Amino acid sequence: MSNHYATRLHAAIKAKQTPVLVGLDPRLDQLPPDVLRHARDEHDDPVAQAAAAFEEFCVRLIDVVAPLVPAVKPQSAFFEEWGPDGCLALSRVIRYARSKGLIVICDAKRGDIGTTAEAYARGYLAGADPKAALWQSDALTVNPYLGRDTLEPFVKIAKERGAGIYVLVKTSNPGSASFQDQNAGGTTIYQHVARVVEELALETAEDGFGCVGAVVGATYPRELVELRASMPHVPLLIPGYGSQGGAAADVAPAFQESGLGAVVNNSRGINFAYKLEPYAEEFGPRKWEAAAEAATKRMIADLAANTTAGKLL
Amino acid sequence: MSNHYATRLHAAIKAKQTPVLVGLDPRLDQLPPDVLRHARDEHDDPVAQAAAAFEEFCVRLIDVVAPLVPAVKPQSAFFEEWGPDGCLALSRVIRYARSKGLIVICDAKRGDIGTTAEAYARGYLAGADPKAALWQSDALTVNPYLGRDTLEPFVKIAKERGAGIYVLVKTSNPGSASFQDQNAGGTTIYQHVARVVEELALETAEDGFGCVGAVVGATYPRELVELRASMPHVPLLIPGYGSQGGAAADVAPAFQESGLGAVVNNSRGINFAYKLEPYAEEFGPRKWEAAAEAATKRMIADLAANTTAGKLL
Repeated sequence: MSNHYATRLHAAIKAKQTPVLVGLDPRLDQLPPDVLRHARDEHDDPVAQAAAAFEEFCVRLIDVVAPLVPAVKPQSAFFEEWGPDGCLALSRVIRYARSKGLIVICDAKRGDIGTTAEAYARGYLAGADPKAALWQSDALTVNPYLGRDTLEPFVKIAKERGAGIYVLVKTSNPGSASFQDQNAGGTTIYQHVARVVEELALETAEDGFGCVGAVVGATYPRELVELRASMPHVPLLIPGYGSQGGAAADVAPAFQESGLGAVVNNSRGINFAYKLEPYAEEFGPRKWEAAAEAATKRMIADLAANTTAGKLL
Repeated sequence: MSNHYATRLHAAIKAKQTPVLVGLDPRLDQLPPDVLRHARDEHDDPVAQAAAAFEEFCVRLIDVVAPLVPAVKPQSAFFEEWGPDGCLALSRVIRYARSKGLIVICDAKRGDIGTTAEAYARGYLAGADPKAALWQSDALTVNPYLGRDTLEPFVKIAKERGAGIYVLVKTSNPGSASFQDQNAGGTTIYQHVARVVEELALETAEDGFGCVGAVVGATYPRELVELRASMPHVPLLIPGYGSQGGAAADVAPAFQESGLGAVVNNSRGINFAYKLEPYAEEFGPRKWEAAAEAATKRMIADLAANTTAGKLL
């Protein structure tokens, strides 16, 4: 098989017959009691406790979802909040996810200029060979504000290593309009970014998709329709399904007729399903893994029933 | 003294009588031979070698510049490239710089939505009390692309803790025009961002300056003049002096008549002065610290002679 990121991603999606991406968002105040208890039993220092709890929670969650989904997306911020110990936990979680055959998209939203961007790219874009970078991710989310020239080091290294990047285009938050929706000469800023992303994807395309993807929020379904059309070679990462309000009907336009073209993320709705109905009543905190499994299966079924991603060949 | 970031920063600037900010950019291929040798003597693993070399290099550079300048700016990317070991080195370097009385601006260009942005803010904005966060920085660089609502968690925590943020407005790279200079209704995107930054600075102002700053590149002197005028309450961080081509005349408009209003960064021109003329010939690799000291003193003199920052009261 080719080492190209999109080719590897699509093979994983076809193998699991779903585009569901499980976010790994270890929020200390929401972790299940047994995970917190183990961490307290093993460590005295609160920082070491948090890092240990994050690692155990993510590893057990990965064990639940690895048979079901193609990819996971650890949110770097939650790990980084706990300093170097948190960073070590993140690196172990990424490594574990890859050992289970998952595609790992590190959600760190990095971006900088010139040789500094290269340093981020070298560090985070392991790509096809996990040993190619210290953070063994397949892909990384990247912020475009600094300009097209600052995306290029990421694209170059992604292409070399069979890695991917997902450039923020239209984000899922309520205030994403403040700068992204500014209209410059009849074209919004997110459309300007989208044009660059499509160019970079086309330049790196294999089997129809580049190694340069885009983040487009499920909370903006109209923009998603437009962006799927204007970026035909771009793999999409769709946040905002579930807890942020996006539904299967909203994300359906992210997929091409083939059923490919996007992964749809769910973080809180799976990680902490044990706190949400209908899972809270059925499973509760002791069976948090069963709750996460049920929520994952429900999302898989929802996307299969309501999008072309249910008919993957 | 007040715990407000700008007040603390300005006290440090007045104490040292200069707005010079020394970037800490440990690039492995440019580190002095003695630093690399010590790391190889102590560690077998190349990753541990890199992390040890980064820490020794930065600590020794801090010892050189701490008596001369008010602040340092570690570039997170170079540390992160080396994985969790690099992150641990970064955290130790930040801690050491604070123990020497320096203001520490962590250049990590973070940004995310909602509670994720809060996690970054809690983790990186220690502010007046170094123990308030795992990364003990006084301030953090932040990317505005995701929208105004994503800046607010940073502003809230910065205000609470006496920390600061520097929002990317007009960056120093050649391609910063691609999105930042797009003209939306007679106003460029960087001007839209600048307007939000000025509002947030005004809301948090004490003694004329807010805890919300802006990054404006010395490589765009015309825009710097305009942005200093449109953001009167905003402390500026000016990259691009020296190796990127900016001169004292270019950065002079960053300062108000009081001589306050900006810090001017120099990374490579000080870190690796031993490789640059006139220092290479005079000092060479063995005397790299003396070269860094001479380059720092020369920059201090240059800004003192050619900007209002030379007449601080």
